[in-house]
Amino acid sequence: MTTVAAYAAPAAKAPLERTTIERRPVGEHDVLIDIKFAGICHSDIHQVREGWGQAIFPMVPGHEIAGVVSQVGSGVTKYQVGDRVGVGCMVDSCRECENCKAGHEQYCTGGNVMTYNGIGKDGQPTYGGYSEKIVVDEDFVVRIPDGIELDVAAPLLCAGITTYSPLKHWNAGPGKKVAVLGMGGLGHMAVKLAHALGAEVTVLSQSLRKKDDGLKLGADHYHATSDPATFEQLRGTFDLIVSTVSAPLDFGAYLSLLKTDGALVNVGAPEEPISLNLFSLIGGRKTLAGSSIGSIRETQEMLDFCAEHGIGAEIELIGAAEINDAYERVLDSDVRYRFVIDTATI
Amino acid sequence: MTTVAAYAAPAAKAPLERTTIERRPVGEHDVLIDIKFAGICHSDIHQVREGWGQAIFPMVPGHEIAGVVSQVGSGVTKYQVGDRVGVGCMVDSCRECENCKAGHEQYCTGGNVMTYNGIGKDGQPTYGGYSEKIVVDEDFVVRIPDGIELDVAAPLLCAGITTYSPLKHWNAGPGKKVAVLGMGGLGHMAVKLAHALGAEVTVLSQSLRKKDDGLKLGADHYHATSDPATFEQLRGTFDLIVSTVSAPLDFGAYLSLLKTDGALVNVGAPEEPISLNLFSLIGGRKTLAGSSIGSIRETQEMLDFCAEHGIGAEIELIGAAEINDAYERVLDSDVRYRFVIDTATI
Repeated sequence: MTTVAAYAAPAAKAPLERTTIERRPVGEHDVLIDIKFAGICHSDIHQVREGWGQAIFPMVPGHEIAGVVSQVGSGVTKYQVGDRVGVGCMVDSCRECENCKAGHEQYCTGGNVMTYNGIGKDGQPTYGGYSEKIVVDEDFVVRIPDGIELDVAAPLLCAGITTYSPLKHWNAGPGKKVAVLGMGGLGHMAVKLAHALGAEVTVLSQSLRKKDDGLKLGADHYHATSDPATFEQLRGTFDLIVSTVSAPLDFGAYLSLLKTDGALVNVGAPEEPISLNLFSLIGGRKTLAGSSIGSIRETQEMLDFCAEHGIGAEIELIGAAEINDAYERVLDSDVRYRFVIDTATI
Repeated sequence: MTTVAAYAAPAAKAPLERTTIERRPVGEHDVLIDIKFAGICHSDIHQVREGWGQAIFPMVPGHEIAGVVSQVGSGVTKYQVGDRVGVGCMVDSCRECENCKAGHEQYCTGGNVMTYNGIGKDGQPTYGGYSEKIVVDEDFVVRIPDGIELDVAAPLLCAGITTYSPLKHWNAGPGKKVAVLGMGGLGHMAVKLAHALGAEVTVLSQSLRKKDDGLKLGADHYHATSDPATFEQLRGTFDLIVSTVSAPLDFGAYLSLLKTDGALVNVGAPEEPISLNLFSLIGGRKTLAGSSIGSIRETQEMLDFCAEHGIGAEIELIGAAEINDAYERVLDSDVRYRFVIDTATI
């Protein structure tokens, strides 16, 4: 066991504070990663505050991890000491279910092991990236290409893959009109990725406050959803809408913006049930769908794609002491566009 | 103009009674059809009772029409006098929008002309199949193959195509597990068609009352949704669920029966909005979708498929005087499985 410094919430809704945790010994197929940067995802806050149900405390959040391999197990074949690597939302899965066998570990039906707020195969709680080091099975580690700095790479491990996966699955690309709903941590990545994939990209945001940024990141159009004219003007426009927002929406209104056979895919979601008139779907054979992160293989593909296209997240780098303030700012949508913790400050 | 006998509701919610209506002169591209049989669709009742919003009265319902061509316009090329033909839910469309041009008239964004309770291009209300004759543009007429009797063919024009289209679109076929939700007019057709397409078919019905019928029509399995064990047992089973019911459902429970990447497609729908937790979709990249009838080309394909596989609807043939009683029985789910009016009795 290795004792490492970390930032943890000792109890639900409590502020995070410095502490130490134990990391398991490096097993045959494990790599030890010196964490350099960890992104702050909105879902960290949901979980610290038990918005998604009962959670495990103390909790060390963080599933946007970028670092460098500092030790490898005897059976490790994919990584060497010094490799630049990342870890996302999962650190293991059952490896036996149909989805795992098909390489879709994110939909493991046997129960995958989340990077934090989960229980590992050793029966111990998992602790995430707001810490100095982490031990992960090599199969759940991805390589960060040299073309991407580690700090802007960290958010790709969740915000990047969560938006890349549905964009690819629903064929965002040349000739396709894609709307990105919400211009936050996930939304700004969706804009960059959809643009790089060749789609015509429209941002739908509450206001035009971030319009300049949106256009700079690759959006072709930018509309305020607070303006009713947006819904008149864009009726029947999009092949795909990726919703990154977790606030309740008028889904009928957004579905009306889709073409026939279009899809509205949710990667963010309100905690409460939504209300939906099914005729909004029937009229144009429309799809309301959801998507959860992406597979390990797809995460690697996304990182390689980002390196090729010079894509990283837009970040505000902070010290560990600023985490609690950063949480408040995330809740106020006051971040452009992802907080990343410099873990050297832990 | 031709005066023909018909059954009409003189006002919203009023009983249907015998009357006469005028049919337009047979235009250059029109065919005059002697209607032989007309199916009673649940949506006839919705519209007569204004359950779907304000309607046009007097209303002659009926969009499951089977008959014989008795006259053709000078420019008609597809049909001759004596041909056995059908008419479904549409009798025209804008023919100019993207969907019309792509052969998806059912999703015409210019506004298609419904067979009844619509306004034709001549500005006159349209009247449906509960009548002796109808005049329809040849492009919205389909051929009923010799292999299908006209009485059992009539319901294929709505119940058949409404279920065939999503089964095809969502790839029901060999190796696929398809559930049909509801065992009524649409449901019994979905069972026959999904079975003929090669899928493994499960009926999900409130009770086991119609189990023997379901298995006879081609279902491999039959489960009662009133039994909570059904949801335990079938968790994660289906590639596709076609919901034919218009009662409010616990959509979370039904979505849990889908495999990863599965789709729950609604061809029936409650009038009121449903409540849905989006995490039911996100967890397994699931789709909630809708589908509306099918194109004219696809309707012809469906009829040819039915002829090839010896498929017709299961019907109870009635005289026109029984229409109002039949409506009550439809509302009581007391029909196996479609009432068809012998229009000779009008």
